Amino acid sequence: MEKIRVGLWGLGAMGKGIAKMLLEKKGIELVSVCDLDPDKVGKSIFEILEIDRCERYEILVEKDYKKAFPYRYADVVLLATDSFIKNAFDKIEYLIDQRVNVISTAEEMAYPKSQYPELAKRIDELAKDKRVSVLGTGINPGFVLDFLVLALTGTCERVNLIKATRVNDLSPFGKAVMEEQGVGVSEETFKDGIKNGTISGHIGFPESIKMVADGIGWQLEKLEQTREAIVSSVYRKSEYAEVKVGSVAGCKQCGYGYVDGELKIVMEHPQQILPNLENVKTGDYITVKGVPDIELQITPEIPGGIGTIAMCVNCIPHVINARPGLKTMLDIPVPRAIMGDIRDMIEGREE
Amino acid sequence: MEKIRVGLWGLGAMGKGIAKMLLEKKGIELVSVCDLDPDKVGKSIFEILEIDRCERYEILVEKDYKKAFPYRYADVVLLATDSFIKNAFDKIEYLIDQRVNVISTAEEMAYPKSQYPELAKRIDELAKDKRVSVLGTGINPGFVLDFLVLALTGTCERVNLIKATRVNDLSPFGKAVMEEQGVGVSEETFKDGIKNGTISGHIGFPESIKMVADGIGWQLEKLEQTREAIVSSVYRKSEYAEVKVGSVAGCKQCGYGYVDGELKIVMEHPQQILPNLENVKTGDYITVKGVPDIELQITPEIPGGIGTIAMCVNCIPHVINARPGLKTMLDIPVPRAIMGDIRDMIEGREE
Repeated sequence: MEKIRVGLWGLGAMGKGIAKMLLEKKGIELVSVCDLDPDKVGKSIFEILEIDRCERYEILVEKDYKKAFPYRYADVVLLATDSFIKNAFDKIEYLIDQRVNVISTAEEMAYPKSQYPELAKRIDELAKDKRVSVLGTGINPGFVLDFLVLALTGTCERVNLIKATRVNDLSPFGKAVMEEQGVGVSEETFKDGIKNGTISGHIGFPESIKMVADGIGWQLEKLEQTREAIVSSVYRKSEYAEVKVGSVAGCKQCGYGYVDGELKIVMEHPQQILPNLENVKTGDYITVKGVPDIELQITPEIPGGIGTIAMCVNCIPHVINARPGLKTMLDIPVPRAIMGDIRDMIEGREE
Repeated sequence: MEKIRVGLWGLGAMGKGIAKMLLEKKGIELVSVCDLDPDKVGKSIFEILEIDRCERYEILVEKDYKKAFPYRYADVVLLATDSFIKNAFDKIEYLIDQRVNVISTAEEMAYPKSQYPELAKRIDELAKDKRVSVLGTGINPGFVLDFLVLALTGTCERVNLIKATRVNDLSPFGKAVMEEQGVGVSEETFKDGIKNGTISGHIGFPESIKMVADGIGWQLEKLEQTREAIVSSVYRKSEYAEVKVGSVAGCKQCGYGYVDGELKIVMEHPQQILPNLENVKTGDYITVKGVPDIELQITPEIPGGIGTIAMCVNCIPHVINARPGLKTMLDIPVPRAIMGDIRDMIEGREE
């Protein structure tokens, strides 16, 4: 069997991590990389990643996606360019037209049906027409606050309430994330940023909450979100940000899902730099109230960057094996590490 | 759409719990129950379960499995009669012949390939021939020490070592379990029991370890198990057992999987009555060493009885939706609670 041919669209932090991971896996061949950054275009991917090419074919970063991903050139393309469906849609449509399977890191693609049912339907139809599969995944949405929650409910006779919390440290992330989360600004600037959309906070609660509700068969009636400044009572300084006492260290975002007039799903995701300075322990915490009650904790939290990279790569065989259409984490088998040859996980593609 | 027709074979502790859960779910109709116990045969299932029949059809416990499960009478039959494949095999074969899907609680059915590759192949062929699916599941094997472990590795770029521990309290279980685990006997009797097979300990490590290894693509070279007496240093008394100081409170079972000459998978499952009397905290604990490291804990542990019952019932839609053949937890989508109408989860059966 030939190697699984994988393309990569987007060479930011996630894309670079994905490229590195792909190059380490047996049975995968990275066949093309597309990015618009003038500092990267035309350069060797091995040079950018600072790794030895060894026996591998050279891969130069291609600016033009049409050249990078011609008709059926790859078995699957990993799309790591956007957070929002609206921005990712044209790229996904193009890839489907080329008859390649797609895995997207876009948070909203983890459960497109939640906010964009029309686009979701369209992607599903296009993919079925071209006999390929499309999946959005990542650490969150995609795993911690949805897939893992759902898996726990698999051991329950009944579920009454779900509460899931992810407490993480933003310090390793770059300047863009600091700005999106409002790190270092005053409380007033934070409030304005939330209003005018320059501070976005976490993207993914509508996706995670709807996925959980649909997954267990709850009719979601209402979905609410709040975003609050985490005001620091101590001085904090990390590589990309500085927070004075009384300024904003991050964004505490909450999501609420209502079923039959009752609050049934509560999600909390406070993101800040250096939470340890105020004795906040990072971790992933899930409580299921029902029969039985379940209390899970993962401390520290599963790291967001590596987690997203791994989830995308580890889902490659599942996406290739899937029946055509738009897929979500509700549809595919358990995502798992690939420590052997990825070709051993391929069932034979439906044509 | 008509209700999903479910049959139940075996009305022990698991079977009774399954029956109760089935009767509470929307879109399911329990159509027949088979058991050999003279105290149950011919009796109303509602009387046995001590619940009101209300508007439901009467179901009398049938002794003869051929009468209980005629050709295509059920969409799926839950088989809760055995722990070992050898004992379950004829029943599974019969059910496949009747063209019904099968979910088995038999621990060895969770990953038949591990110890009985020939039987596994045969079940797979028979099921494919008759266009039905067969799945073994439960809390463990089936979830805690395999599915959940695998799911965590989905967020890993690389895995170096897996350690998973399930510490539980046997007190709620009945006399049969006390005897299987050697609760209350002397250390010498325990050792003899292990030798002559009257004390079995936990059934499922070969299945869980092989499922994890296969799942992530490790070539398992060697699999070892140990069983040790948990000698009590305090007096313990529960409903079904009494343990004197110096006697056996339960069985500590360990499983080891080797890959490339290295120990890669360690599983521990100490089972005893009243571990709290010696300050042992019950719980499910998983450590993944790799990129990243992950430390998960669920305290207390997910209860075994409810967990197994729920896993079996919650997998019904997945087994009906699956392509024909022998399936494992590696194949099906994430098991999850069924809080709506189960028919909403059925994709349309392949014929």
